[in-house]
Amino acid sequence: MSRYSPTSFRALTWHDQAPAFRDGTDTPRAFLERCLETIAEREPVVRAWAALNDAGAREAADASTARWKAGQPLSPIDGMPIGIKDLLETRDMPTEMGCAAYRGNFPKRDNAAVRALREAGAVILGKTVTTELGGAHPGPSTNPFDARRTPGGSSSGSAAAVAARMVPAAIGTQVGGSIIRPAAYCGNVALKPSQGAINRGERQATSQSTHGPHAGCVEDAWLVAMAIASRVGGDPGKVALCGPAAPPAALRPERLIVMETEGWAALDEASKRAFEALLARVTAAGVTLLRRADHPLVERFEQGIADGRAVCNALTGWENRWAYRNLLDQDAEGISARARGVLAKAEAMTVADYQAALAAREEAQARHARIAPLADAVIALACPGPAPIWEGDVPGQPLAPRPTGDFVFNAPSSMLFAPAVTVPLLAVGGLPVGVQVMAQPTQDARAAAIARWLLESVPPIEA
Amino acid sequence: MSRYSPTSFRALTWHDQAPAFRDGTDTPRAFLERCLETIAEREPVVRAWAALNDAGAREAADASTARWKAGQPLSPIDGMPIGIKDLLETRDMPTEMGCAAYRGNFPKRDNAAVRALREAGAVILGKTVTTELGGAHPGPSTNPFDARRTPGGSSSGSAAAVAARMVPAAIGTQVGGSIIRPAAYCGNVALKPSQGAINRGERQATSQSTHGPHAGCVEDAWLVAMAIASRVGGDPGKVALCGPAAPPAALRPERLIVMETEGWAALDEASKRAFEALLARVTAAGVTLLRRADHPLVERFEQGIADGRAVCNALTGWENRWAYRNLLDQDAEGISARARGVLAKAEAMTVADYQAALAAREEAQARHARIAPLADAVIALACPGPAPIWEGDVPGQPLAPRPTGDFVFNAPSSMLFAPAVTVPLLAVGGLPVGVQVMAQPTQDARAAAIARWLLESVPPIEA
Repeated sequence: MSRYSPTSFRALTWHDQAPAFRDGTDTPRAFLERCLETIAEREPVVRAWAALNDAGAREAADASTARWKAGQPLSPIDGMPIGIKDLLETRDMPTEMGCAAYRGNFPKRDNAAVRALREAGAVILGKTVTTELGGAHPGPSTNPFDARRTPGGSSSGSAAAVAARMVPAAIGTQVGGSIIRPAAYCGNVALKPSQGAINRGERQATSQSTHGPHAGCVEDAWLVAMAIASRVGGDPGKVALCGPAAPPAALRPERLIVMETEGWAALDEASKRAFEALLARVTAAGVTLLRRADHPLVERFEQGIADGRAVCNALTGWENRWAYRNLLDQDAEGISARARGVLAKAEAMTVADYQAALAAREEAQARHARIAPLADAVIALACPGPAPIWEGDVPGQPLAPRPTGDFVFNAPSSMLFAPAVTVPLLAVGGLPVGVQVMAQPTQDARAAAIARWLLESVPPIEA
Repeated sequence: MSRYSPTSFRALTWHDQAPAFRDGTDTPRAFLERCLETIAEREPVVRAWAALNDAGAREAADASTARWKAGQPLSPIDGMPIGIKDLLETRDMPTEMGCAAYRGNFPKRDNAAVRALREAGAVILGKTVTTELGGAHPGPSTNPFDARRTPGGSSSGSAAAVAARMVPAAIGTQVGGSIIRPAAYCGNVALKPSQGAINRGERQATSQSTHGPHAGCVEDAWLVAMAIASRVGGDPGKVALCGPAAPPAALRPERLIVMETEGWAALDEASKRAFEALLARVTAAGVTLLRRADHPLVERFEQGIADGRAVCNALTGWENRWAYRNLLDQDAEGISARARGVLAKAEAMTVADYQAALAAREEAQARHARIAPLADAVIALACPGPAPIWEGDVPGQPLAPRPTGDFVFNAPSSMLFAPAVTVPLLAVGGLPVGVQVMAQPTQDARAAAIARWLLESVPPIEA
């Protein structure tokens, strides 16, 4: 177990290597070999990977090395080793989705985002562990800073691989909190883009899910997201990720709204104190903070998201209902007891229940739009304190409801279709706790710019 | 070859059989056997079916017969034999999508709509032929009224099976014109619902496609659509089909807007005269017609859809691009030369081209919304004259661009996300030509009610 410090921890980064690739003092192949060494060293405990394709990665890295050498990289991320959450199809590796029913599933197709990454020259190194079907039932991954703890979910392996410095970036997905929460638990940067901003390819079944990168810095997260969106666009019918090709420069906001969520009341005191201490530093840096007591529109906004977890669970449960039922019909043991519980709740819903949850989501979105003129963005914790300890289900005991942690601070950005960027600015008890910036839909670049400013200009808090 | 007359043709209908099922003078099993006899007789020429499950259908029909006998049918369509377009997954039959790359594909899952139909007691009799992947490349189905002619596409088999009285209803899908056009060519009633109104299950890849029923009458089409939407709702994030559980009563409109589309100029004279003669009867029945010369908003609306086919093709081509590319990467012969041509066009597009097509669609939708106060609905031809003759590709010759006919009259409802109902009110040269009612999005019931009034109150034209 290593104690985490946001001050001393050095994440693995990519964009700052470009000069070395250009002048030949480093190469993508050498970078990959260092990644593989880290994996060899740490994977036995961290267990971030569902599949690795070393041979394919080495071949791709060699091709990239030649392109850099010739001065003709395909993109700023040409040669970047990257992990792909095992919900997304990849033509050269199985896609098992952490689910018994999908064991051996190997459709030999590339998700649109994976194809875009390959076109940008990225090295698809492997598939990262996901919780079962992106739901609550955990996979084997552990938190790189404390193996007794979860890395968060559902993008467990993506979070752990980046935090363990195995790869500079990995693709996650979020329907409720599955990109931002694990990143926050693992000390990563991550971008959960505006709903629809990155083409999900074959994964269009849910109305509020997105693909998004985990990375060691805002710059790399942005480059990965733009490499995808500039090649394969957004979801069908949606506006693709907007913003500059290069990472947005740091932007000091004038005003930020502090979002509490329904998680505030239950938050542990140490995390609350750490976040308040950070907010004090943000204020000291010249930013005006607006809290729910300060403006009735902020209070209304908070009330609109107060039932966020329930709304997200109802919507996603219903939308996944037929897929889960098909799996269960084929194989009674094909999905976990946890997933069967989710299905049972969804099957008790009516069309009217679903429409009511949709209406609740739309009202929350309207309340979010109403606060747009009040501030540049929203700031909030990205997870409810440090990653919880998870030692597995106990036979005969009721199932722990949230073994990969609580998405109470993440339901808002998911249901609001809003972009969110988490940055590692807190340590509580020697473990990472993320802080997120959330912006209005399509304002992904603004969220990234403000997050970058926080990271560069506000000293982290270690509690 | 049989000459078609909308006056004398009697479609196979279901809803009017309920009294006989209740009093035992007819049974769903007996109904099914009559369907199977018709199939045995006509399938060798019509070729509507990609797969049949007689045994499963007989078992389901017997169960339904018992329920009717006990006075406990699951729904008004309990026992109805129904065909499912072979793009939708069914757990008991392969899903080959008219595509070599999917030969033998048998995922043993039910599309959400199929599951809903089973829950309503419907008898899933078989899979109906689709053009390749729902695109331009035709399957083997022929028009039941002239075997030299296409039944239209992409819902070719669904259209032909209903028109040949093999089944009272079949599910089609439409991204451009694939429900309404084949129905219009085959003398069927069909409902293309508002975008998102019927859950497409696993088929969420395109932003303007819908499932919708072909049937012998408006009542059956409505009952099938509601049986699905009341059980599995609409697409993720969308409002489900709105309206009464029972078929909407006929409604005489006060005013209708006549939509010409870019198809008007190229329309054959006989079809134009027939449609004008029908409009004269509509006027005689007390309905005020509003044409593009009558109001600048109607003219602006027409201009907004004037490039409809190109907009639809750009959007759908882009959205299918990665799926087609994956198929082609796996098997160079897995998709037709026609589909490869579509892919080549899509691969020449940029994200910006796609966003421009989206903007064009949104502007057309805004112009459609603007005409809402002017009239109760829109009336238009549902196809550009009778079904064309199609005798196959000629080796060495360029590929015919639209072997299953032109979707020029259907692109509007698709791109406007608007409900459309076609009814068989014209015969031109002894072949069916449909007339459609299009309403504002979510006004499916109004479109159905006005279509029903047309069918019941306006005598058809035979030219």
